[in-house]
Amino acid sequence: MTSDLAHRIAQLGLALPAAPAPRGAYESVVIHDDIAYVSGQVCRIEGGVIAGPVSDSTPPETIRHAAHTCVLRALAVLHANVPASLDIDRTLFLRGFVHAAPGFAHYGRVLDEASTLLLAILGERGRHARSAVGVAGLPDGALLEIELVVALARAPGDGLEQS
Amino acid sequence: MTSDLAHRIAQLGLALPAAPAPRGAYESVVIHDDIAYVSGQVCRIEGGVIAGPVSDSTPPETIRHAAHTCVLRALAVLHANVPASLDIDRTLFLRGFVHAAPGFAHYGRVLDEASTLLLAILGERGRHARSAVGVAGLPDGALLEIELVVALARAPGDGLEQS
Amino acid sequence: MTSDLAHRIAQLGLALPAAPAPRGAYESVVIHDDIAYVSGQVCRIEGGVIAGPVSDSTPPETIRHAAHTCVLRALAVLHANVPASLDIDRTLFLRGFVHAAPGFAHYGRVLDEASTLLLAILGERGRHARSAVGVAGLPDGALLEIELVVALARAPGDGLEQS
Repeated sequence: MTSDLAHRIAQLGLALPAAPAPRGAYESVVIHDDIAYVSGQVCRIEGGVIAGPVSDSTPPETIRHAAHTCVLRALAVLHANVPASLDIDRTLFLRGFVHAAPGFAHYGRVLDEASTLLLAILGERGRHARSAVGVAGLPDGALLEIELVVALARAPGDGLEQS
Repeated sequence: MTSDLAHRIAQLGLALPAAPAPRGAYESVVIHDDIAYVSGQVCRIEGGVIAGPVSDSTPPETIRHAAHTCVLRALAVLHANVPASLDIDRTLFLRGFVHAAPGFAHYGRVLDEASTLLLAILGERGRHARSAVGVAGLPDGALLEIELVVALARAPGDGLEQS
Repeated sequence: MTSDLAHRIAQLGLALPAAPAPRGAYESVVIHDDIAYVSGQVCRIEGGVIAGPVSDSTPPETIRHAAHTCVLRALAVLHANVPASLDIDRTLFLRGFVHAAPGFAHYGRVLDEASTLLLAILGERGRHARSAVGVAGLPDGALLEIELVVALARAPGDGLEQS
């Protein structure tokens, strides 16, 4: 991926992290034809995770931090694994698993923090279908896990376009 | 979509609802190549949702109503967003997230209400692979959320078939 | 599928089970173009399921048995439904829903038992992206449910290769 992803993220006052290594016997991303399937990314930070469960008393900044962390990790994984000749053409689906306390119902608010960031970074290419569900637990007690499926296309400026 | 979807649904004594607008920063459906990914649809009705959690004492009519509501909303979203030249060729996957009380185990019964309706409406084209899981919560406390992935093909009678 | 799947599984000291029949109004697998979508497979055994919830005191052998059962059932479904001219070319995604007790956090360990078996059976073709989430319940109280998406390709030795 030769896109200006890191630059665009920096403009938003954020940083593209190093691509996280898989924490088990799986791949961070699998590409088949023009579709990239990104493994579920939890809100893992230096020294641990942003922990769930989320409840109505969780500060909005914590929710935003968790959502941004998941999205940036998913993009880092794509950035590191998609060949330089390809770029994100369209985000197809974002699935959000939210580790929530009993009675929590505002899953849309949690996921909107992820969706909004994706749109801010990718523009039209970030528009996606989505599901939000509440789950009983996530790896290491994380608050949020996000799956991303994106369609790839030849990167603009890779010198291979038809003239 | 030029199919007789609304007509077929009416024959079953049901009605295709207006396509629900997304309730956040996402799209109701994203189409890539011949695949349509429908955002998770919860059992939202006039003035709220059919609420979970489902338990062994939930009336079957409530479960059926929830399942039908999700399926009809997913079809409404497809009907409103798939170009007129295309129609549903095959249902690929139906994923059902059931907001259930502790100890509930009859997820198959809940999802069968959705699967059966899909088959009644779409016939062979409605045959699908499926997963059913129990979740801790869903947007606004809904009982059920359904994701649908369908394959599209040129609509019969669109005048573009090869002679 | 003409692959030596059963032979490879036997070499590992395991057995490819009979393909389970769907337990409702759905298909075990749907194939579209070169992608096979396998319905969620729970750890169903003779006379019942390997029951959840999993907790920190669940014996590792129980977790391994559950994971192996789900994987082998998914492969059995593919073996029985994929035409003889096709074989698994690549595993794209493995999604694991773990029925877990409150506070459980080691979802990666549960899913690694599935991922490791898939790699042992399929080699390079078994490398996959993955998600692991904890859920409130699964059909019949099972401990684990696994979804598999695989890409298919013309089977080697089917006599149709280009010379």
